[in-house]
Amino acid sequence: MRVGIVGGGQLARMMMESASALGIQCVLLAESESDAATQFCTEVIIGSPHDPTAMQSLADRCDVVTFDHELVDLEILAELAASGTLVRPRPTSLLFAVDKAAMRVTLGASGLPMPRFVLVEPGTDADLGALGDDLGWPVVIKAARGGYDGRGVYIVDDPNEAARVVAELHAHNTTALLEERVVIISELAALVARNPSGDFVTWPVVETAQVGGVCREVLVPGSVSPELEARARSIAERVADVVGVEGVMAVELFETSEGLVINELAMRPHNSGHWTQDGSVTSQFQNHLRSVLDLPLGSTEMTAAHVASVNVFGSDTPFDLDDGLPTALLNAEAHVHLYGKSSRPGRKLGHVTATGADALEVRRQAWKSAIALGTPVPDQIREVQP
Amino acid sequence: MRVGIVGGGQLARMMMESASALGIQCVLLAESESDAATQFCTEVIIGSPHDPTAMQSLADRCDVVTFDHELVDLEILAELAASGTLVRPRPTSLLFAVDKAAMRVTLGASGLPMPRFVLVEPGTDADLGALGDDLGWPVVIKAARGGYDGRGVYIVDDPNEAARVVAELHAHNTTALLEERVVIISELAALVARNPSGDFVTWPVVETAQVGGVCREVLVPGSVSPELEARARSIAERVADVVGVEGVMAVELFETSEGLVINELAMRPHNSGHWTQDGSVTSQFQNHLRSVLDLPLGSTEMTAAHVASVNVFGSDTPFDLDDGLPTALLNAEAHVHLYGKSSRPGRKLGHVTATGADALEVRRQAWKSAIALGTPVPDQIREVQP
Repeated sequence: MRVGIVGGGQLARMMMESASALGIQCVLLAESESDAATQFCTEVIIGSPHDPTAMQSLADRCDVVTFDHELVDLEILAELAASGTLVRPRPTSLLFAVDKAAMRVTLGASGLPMPRFVLVEPGTDADLGALGDDLGWPVVIKAARGGYDGRGVYIVDDPNEAARVVAELHAHNTTALLEERVVIISELAALVARNPSGDFVTWPVVETAQVGGVCREVLVPGSVSPELEARARSIAERVADVVGVEGVMAVELFETSEGLVINELAMRPHNSGHWTQDGSVTSQFQNHLRSVLDLPLGSTEMTAAHVASVNVFGSDTPFDLDDGLPTALLNAEAHVHLYGKSSRPGRKLGHVTATGADALEVRRQAWKSAIALGTPVPDQIREVQP
Repeated sequence: MRVGIVGGGQLARMMMESASALGIQCVLLAESESDAATQFCTEVIIGSPHDPTAMQSLADRCDVVTFDHELVDLEILAELAASGTLVRPRPTSLLFAVDKAAMRVTLGASGLPMPRFVLVEPGTDADLGALGDDLGWPVVIKAARGGYDGRGVYIVDDPNEAARVVAELHAHNTTALLEERVVIISELAALVARNPSGDFVTWPVVETAQVGGVCREVLVPGSVSPELEARARSIAERVADVVGVEGVMAVELFETSEGLVINELAMRPHNSGHWTQDGSVTSQFQNHLRSVLDLPLGSTEMTAAHVASVNVFGSDTPFDLDDGLPTALLNAEAHVHLYGKSSRPGRKLGHVTATGADALEVRRQAWKSAIALGTPVPDQIREVQP
């Protein structure tokens, strides 16, 4: 079996680790020969997902096309699908991960819980003052397409600032998504996998810590109570039904005083699910591959009572990961995952997962190794300050 | 960090899955472009370990050279080591895995428990009748070098047959190792890892089921009592000291009515340790890489009370593994590992590992998936007959 992956980042790399075990050959469409996954792939096409020829060339070499990221061209994908290529998730599903406006409209129409929102499309005028007054200042403005890891998200305090951001988005022909700024008690993520035959599994819901729009740690179960978990799983199941996902999908949620609201969707293995490699019977990477190949899905049960996964980031001082590795590995309970990247300030370089019986202990263990690998500890994450 | 691997089989392939997670780049010396590991390696040298130029070319491209198999040329390795290449395990240790005669003599001299044995070297005459009478008929005759998976092992009933086998070995310039045929109560394997700094870990001792000299299943702990486990671990620790291994080493043991005796050694990840991928905190593949790079070693604790790992073999009828995979994966608790090989009669194609609370249940689960992948069940393994 041959799986084509659009994108050559760490998600593709970790998919390939799972592919090897199932005897699956991967073909990558990577932007650059230095992408994280190319070091482990013998079949790499260098090209852009916005180039129909490159995409066709990928399709020609595999049984199914799937994704490492969502910065793709849905029209090209729709044409590939129309001419018989298996694209999973299907472009009609992927739309809801690519386009936050479409996601809000469609999930909203299905009654799924979301912040209040308004779309301001390019070429339209809107009374931003009135919209902002209605949503409440400050207002969150998002680029409907193209943002990730906090990019393309703006918090604006007044109508003038809103007008500047909206004009900037419209200049790039991008719809502006205005949302009420909800008061977040905690951030959660619910991870599901679904195959075309209808097999459906959900992993335990996780708590994530985001700093500056970037995920820094994932705790399972963290502060997620059984009641919250049940509600989050139920939302994720309904989202999966509405969007008809094939593959792994992460539903990012905010816990607010008025309940859970959906933040956004990702239709691929997700940073909030890296813990599954070491903390659940089947990893998100393996179940993603099984899903897109329409194979039965593996158990999502946890293998320990508590799991913490901490992202490894480059700091402002030069650092060689190889120098940090011996100390990181001294921590016998920590599972170190590196993406083969060199350290640069703010660059996501890997993650460390620890499993065990005690919530704070696994968190400390994971941070200990992440810190040994040069990760700066954000002020916001106080419990693990060294 | 760059690790060179001599051999491109499934052990190299699974080392590379672990290497990816640690950000380690592997370079393979493979005999053929169709070897199992080449599908996942971007740096492959096609060549033989018996060719000094190919070996030098491998050494030039990595920080340390290690092994997927022991069918190597110790003189070439000694020259590489003498000129500064890190070869791990060192050729002086590897000798005891390559050469069963050297292993018997050296471990015997250290008082380690072994069957009684006699060496008959090429160019020497021996009274095989008297030797056999002393050891007891039938006698086991082994090629000192070059055999594996039961090849190069002969059970002979009388002096004439012994003479034929010895003459055949001598014709290939191979020493004949004559051993008493011990009565085997059970077969065990003790797996250790040791790094050059002296870190040393042992995994729980396993029971193996060999049929026709080939490992069919591995049970942890199987029938291994705590007392037997302690004795086996202690023997493995002493062997590691005597041979000075760097990397993973498997000590294969026979349980006899007179206690444990050493059968043979492997100095690399070993089939009896594949269960560690899914049943222990750190897999043998990851700890092998850590050992040869002199990194701290990971925990060898089990993640479940019972683990069974069953090898997937090709049967006499043509079979496409892709056809069996959906049924094999229906078994949500089983971890399927395939080596990217096509099915041929008697060919080792993969393994399935199941973990859980009940010994018989994990065994049945692992066999269920292995059978779905076309594995014939040997008559000798009755408990899991479908």
